[in-house]
Amino acid sequence: MKNLFTLLCWFALTFSALANDGYGLWLDYSPVQNTQLRSDLSRLYSGFYFFGKSPTYEVIQKELTLSGEKMLGQSPVFTTERLAQTQVWLGTREELSQVLSLQQQTSLRALGEDGFWRGPITFQGKTYYAIIGNRPVGVLYGVFDWLKSIQTDSFDKTAEKTDSPKVRLRMLNHWDNLDRTVERGYAGFSIWDWHKLPGYVDPRYLDYARANASLGINAVSLTNVNANARILTTDFMKKAKVLADLFRPYGIKVFLTARFSAPMEIGGLKTADPLDPAVIDFWKKKTEEMYSFIPDFGGFLVKANSEGQPGPHEYGRNHAEGANLLADALAPHGGVVIWRAFVYSHELDEDRHKHANLEFEPLDGKFRDNVILQVKNGAIDFMPREPFHPLFGAMPQTNVGMEFQITQEYLGQATQLVYLAPMWEEVLQSKTYRPTPSSTVGGVVDGSDSGKKLTLVAGVSNIGTDRNWTGHLMAQSNWYAFGRLAWDPDLTSQTIAEEWVKMTFGRDPELLSKVSGMLLDSREAAVNYMMPLGLHHIMGWDHHYGPGPWVTGGRPDWTAPYYHQADSLGIGFDRTASGSDALGQYAPEIVQAWSDPQQIPEKYLLWFHHLPWDFKLQSGRTLWDEIGLHYDAGVKSVRQMQETWTSVQDKIDPERHEHVRQLLAIQAEEAEWWRNACLLYFQTFAKRPFPAEIEQPTGDLEEYKSRRFPTAPGIRPRW
Amino acid sequence: MKNLFTLLCWFALTFSALANDGYGLWLDYSPVQNTQLRSDLSRLYSGFYFFGKSPTYEVIQKELTLSGEKMLGQSPVFTTERLAQTQVWLGTREELSQVLSLQQQTSLRALGEDGFWRGPITFQGKTYYAIIGNRPVGVLYGVFDWLKSIQTDSFDKTAEKTDSPKVRLRMLNHWDNLDRTVERGYAGFSIWDWHKLPGYVDPRYLDYARANASLGINAVSLTNVNANARILTTDFMKKAKVLADLFRPYGIKVFLTARFSAPMEIGGLKTADPLDPAVIDFWKKKTEEMYSFIPDFGGFLVKANSEGQPGPHEYGRNHAEGANLLADALAPHGGVVIWRAFVYSHELDEDRHKHANLEFEPLDGKFRDNVILQVKNGAIDFMPREPFHPLFGAMPQTNVGMEFQITQEYLGQATQLVYLAPMWEEVLQSKTYRPTPSSTVGGVVDGSDSGKKLTLVAGVSNIGTDRNWTGHLMAQSNWYAFGRLAWDPDLTSQTIAEEWVKMTFGRDPELLSKVSGMLLDSREAAVNYMMPLGLHHIMGWDHHYGPGPWVTGGRPDWTAPYYHQADSLGIGFDRTASGSDALGQYAPEIVQAWSDPQQIPEKYLLWFHHLPWDFKLQSGRTLWDEIGLHYDAGVKSVRQMQETWTSVQDKIDPERHEHVRQLLAIQAEEAEWWRNACLLYFQTFAKRPFPAEIEQPTGDLEEYKSRRFPTAPGIRPRW
Repeated sequence: MKNLFTLLCWFALTFSALANDGYGLWLDYSPVQNTQLRSDLSRLYSGFYFFGKSPTYEVIQKELTLSGEKMLGQSPVFTTERLAQTQVWLGTREELSQVLSLQQQTSLRALGEDGFWRGPITFQGKTYYAIIGNRPVGVLYGVFDWLKSIQTDSFDKTAEKTDSPKVRLRMLNHWDNLDRTVERGYAGFSIWDWHKLPGYVDPRYLDYARANASLGINAVSLTNVNANARILTTDFMKKAKVLADLFRPYGIKVFLTARFSAPMEIGGLKTADPLDPAVIDFWKKKTEEMYSFIPDFGGFLVKANSEGQPGPHEYGRNHAEGANLLADALAPHGGVVIWRAFVYSHELDEDRHKHANLEFEPLDGKFRDNVILQVKNGAIDFMPREPFHPLFGAMPQTNVGMEFQITQEYLGQATQLVYLAPMWEEVLQSKTYRPTPSSTVGGVVDGSDSGKKLTLVAGVSNIGTDRNWTGHLMAQSNWYAFGRLAWDPDLTSQTIAEEWVKMTFGRDPELLSKVSGMLLDSREAAVNYMMPLGLHHIMGWDHHYGPGPWVTGGRPDWTAPYYHQADSLGIGFDRTASGSDALGQYAPEIVQAWSDPQQIPEKYLLWFHHLPWDFKLQSGRTLWDEIGLHYDAGVKSVRQMQETWTSVQDKIDPERHEHVRQLLAIQAEEAEWWRNACLLYFQTFAKRPFPAEIEQPTGDLEEYKSRRFPTAPGIRPRW
Repeated sequence: MKNLFTLLCWFALTFSALANDGYGLWLDYSPVQNTQLRSDLSRLYSGFYFFGKSPTYEVIQKELTLSGEKMLGQSPVFTTERLAQTQVWLGTREELSQVLSLQQQTSLRALGEDGFWRGPITFQGKTYYAIIGNRPVGVLYGVFDWLKSIQTDSFDKTAEKTDSPKVRLRMLNHWDNLDRTVERGYAGFSIWDWHKLPGYVDPRYLDYARANASLGINAVSLTNVNANARILTTDFMKKAKVLADLFRPYGIKVFLTARFSAPMEIGGLKTADPLDPAVIDFWKKKTEEMYSFIPDFGGFLVKANSEGQPGPHEYGRNHAEGANLLADALAPHGGVVIWRAFVYSHELDEDRHKHANLEFEPLDGKFRDNVILQVKNGAIDFMPREPFHPLFGAMPQTNVGMEFQITQEYLGQATQLVYLAPMWEEVLQSKTYRPTPSSTVGGVVDGSDSGKKLTLVAGVSNIGTDRNWTGHLMAQSNWYAFGRLAWDPDLTSQTIAEEWVKMTFGRDPELLSKVSGMLLDSREAAVNYMMPLGLHHIMGWDHHYGPGPWVTGGRPDWTAPYYHQADSLGIGFDRTASGSDALGQYAPEIVQAWSDPQQIPEKYLLWFHHLPWDFKLQSGRTLWDEIGLHYDAGVKSVRQMQETWTSVQDKIDPERHEHVRQLLAIQAEEAEWWRNACLLYFQTFAKRPFPAEIEQPTGDLEEYKSRRFPTAPGIRPRW
């Protein structure tokens, strides 16, 4: 048996060296080398017993089969007798009630519907390893957690472990169009092959569900928020039903995006007015039909009156009236409306930053209980760094959820390694001072500060048809980190990075330290070479690829100068009381601290202040020099990442190493392009030399301005 | 060693059972089971010796490594000494000249630049197995042919084998847009990731080259014939260069599509007039630049004055003047212009069928020697069945190449099993009677009848990002068959089908017979349930998905009634002398035979004749009844295919079996839809009952007409 195992490992490794294409994600289950652990696991895999029946348990069996074969070269044995041969017990609290003490049952119950307990249980003199949830999906989460503990060298068969998610809805938002283009997709195209559904079921759908379940993601919106009403036709409901049926055993609910004008486009009505009885009836019937296909349908995700999407304003109604229309249709079925707060005026705002608060704060308390307002982490649009959105903490009577962007629209797109967890951690840990003096964004979102139960963390998916799912292999870490933070917003980006590296590349200590170091440094590097010191929205037009601080044309708040305000005197957007006073939308503690350019954290400096080029920073350097140093530091960080990656070449299979190596080389070029183009452009205002200690920008500003990328990825739909 | 091998096989089979996703194509090299053959091969794999050095030999080494590991569980040994340990000799005629007799050298030379010889050679008392070409790529072709002989159980180590292609350019045409959409793509999106080139090289590019080389495909046009001039900018040339460099060792030349108006779009000129000196200079310089990046660039493929594409007509010039402009620019570098003959008038033609001949025949002899006219197999547009294009044989002074469509635009698209080789075979074997009385289309195309040396068989690619390359696993057979027929237009569709089945699914005799039978019957089935008896162009609007005999609107020759001409009296397009006389464009022998509705092969009946519903066919049945019987027979053929597929379930891995099973179920539904919709529609004219012996059409004609598929695959570019 040992020889067999050695041989299988050799063979598996040979094959993976030939072709490790990253499809296996963090669930590739590398062989267990530790002899004692292998022996323990070999025993545990020799006898699994399920106390009940559930489609979810079939999913668990598949995962145990795959993991057993890959980790141990051993197929698990599933016994039908509870005692003889049995090593591992799996089931729900109710299913195991005869073998659990009352106290154990009480503790378990307290973990909530998605929590789990795992650890040793002694029964009639024999010790079993048990994984127990309150529902089958809790058992599934427990199994994935157990497998993770093995993959991260932290499994202790004698220890107890409990966990439960802090957030109710842990959700992916796909911006996928029905023609399979993905609006901000950098990993190929949509994995949803609507044309071949419902008849053809791509096996990839199951691997997608499996990966999400391994993180505790329990909700997915399949379609773009720039919505097509066709998704609500009967034909497409039948297609969506197939996916919902596939995802159900993995504990994942399907949501769809609802186009507000659907009553007109597919309902034959002349209006979509939310107070019109025919419109109310349309949504009621449409929702009933939806539930006839998908009995546990999650609900609707809506982008309304934003960037050209139709909404209640066309009829003189407000967002609450719009959201409540759908909420009332969904309520009898237990469904939820997720209403996006990313709105800005058709007319030019004085400062787009302020728009959402102006529009939504007055509606606090007006939304139904089954409405969640989904708020982007910052007030502009997923910039490399934004201060947290002032809506967090500002609407105590409303369910307010978080929208992160996992796809790297503004953070390197298809070609850059940027680990986003530090950005999300920064937002979640930001103090809002509202509703309580100690409140944080994370506390508002997970309900610990807001007291809300219907909580949500959503992320705009970075998943596509590319073989490795996310285009850049390292972007798998962002899918992973999103799921982990949605489960527990208090996790640190470092903990998550280390988990992911171990599960993806193995447990070599040097590799772990170096690669997780690369991840953790990467976001600050991107901020530096793109938009340091609070600069924002200075990327390329439309596709958002590359630098574009010179971009004008179209409405002013879609251009760069609106945001950086560079002139001969200085740079930055004055959002204090002397300017737009967007800062005034935050809690007084923040207003006080950030109004002073000497007190505000420098990372937010130019977000809130317009300052002279010679303004002195804490370093003693001028603002102009500090800008130059930041851009240059960003470039140098990327080069450091390249060196680090080269140094771990012998610890990673050639295919994945070469993949990342090539992309890091592109990233280094792109970082230089950003630095050179932005510094040369800002120099036309500052009219000062670059600081001597930086690598002097090269290239021709006019040439940089002339670059066009009409075939950059992230395609809009064709209708 | 034997145990090792057994174990490896078991492991490989276990894994393939878990996940055989079809990525390996016909090159997956299943384990050799025959003991004697394994022993022979094991010896041969123990000593390969190359007589020279070439990047192509490195490619061969990789293929030998992969095949050795998969077939034998054995890594090949590459020796550096010619005699000791050596078993297999590889090299060119020149490299081996010292060990070959003069006669052997003469025979080899006669095989031409792409031919090869393989067989035993005795030298100084020892026998070696040798694979020899006139160029390294000939050796590569010989190696692939040898590996194929192993996979198809036909390797005889004592026998000699020679082969050489009958056609000079064996070419894939990708209709891939620069944004990765594919105009008629049913297998996902474009495998060319232009955005990440030149910095990022997808490993898939090499597997693509390998698959093509295994068939002898030696030219690829990377971009859509509905062209974007941007491909000719310096930035994109740098990207194309990377692909050309990758493909070179595989013997594959890169072509690009040239937009005729490029001098205006990227050259800053006010005209694209082919006689304008500035335009001539633009193309000369642009071509020189292209060759500076790709020294063996193949040339330009051009669609001009067709379906809105710009061309010489805008300036009062003809197609020869347009083509010669590019030909003169390419000639100094050895490049070729491939000029498409798929043109029709901006104004409505009396019969679109006639247009190409009217426009091109007068130009015979006016094209430069390095121009090839690329003619679709039929005069309309890749219908399920067309009589051969009357241009074949009609332009003796012109290089005339064949354009087949491998992607199934009109033959089931993403969801139907339709093996196209019988269609191509039917065309190639058609007698043209020109230029000689015994001429065939194949003879015109491969030069044996036309005397031309610059010959071409092109196929519109069916390759996309789907994991199995072609969307439908069975559509891999069409890529395979295209390559084989381009190499040798005299091969039969049956031979090719059997090769492909053996290499794809293994050599079980029952499996071979049943699956190749399915393939061979599938095209006639599709003709029957879509467009039997010469009907054509009655598919859905724009996306061409599903039936649409009622489609009107837009220009008449884009609609269905223009082609089927159904009325109360009868059905069919009169193309005889009493009608459009398109038939008159063929040789007199054909005109005579086909003018008579009693003599013309029934498969072309309604293509050339408008006949009464009660017209009697050879079966004694009326035309109306026969139409019904054909549609119904098509449906029944698909059901038979389903049954056959079920019967081989235990002979195919579950993943691939299930994939095809699901798609066959969709095909059965689609076939019924075609039958029902077409018969119900034609009944509104014929006003007769359906023949009693068929399954009576069901459904509601108005409902069929109302179906819309805006998200059907095959997306047009967004500019």
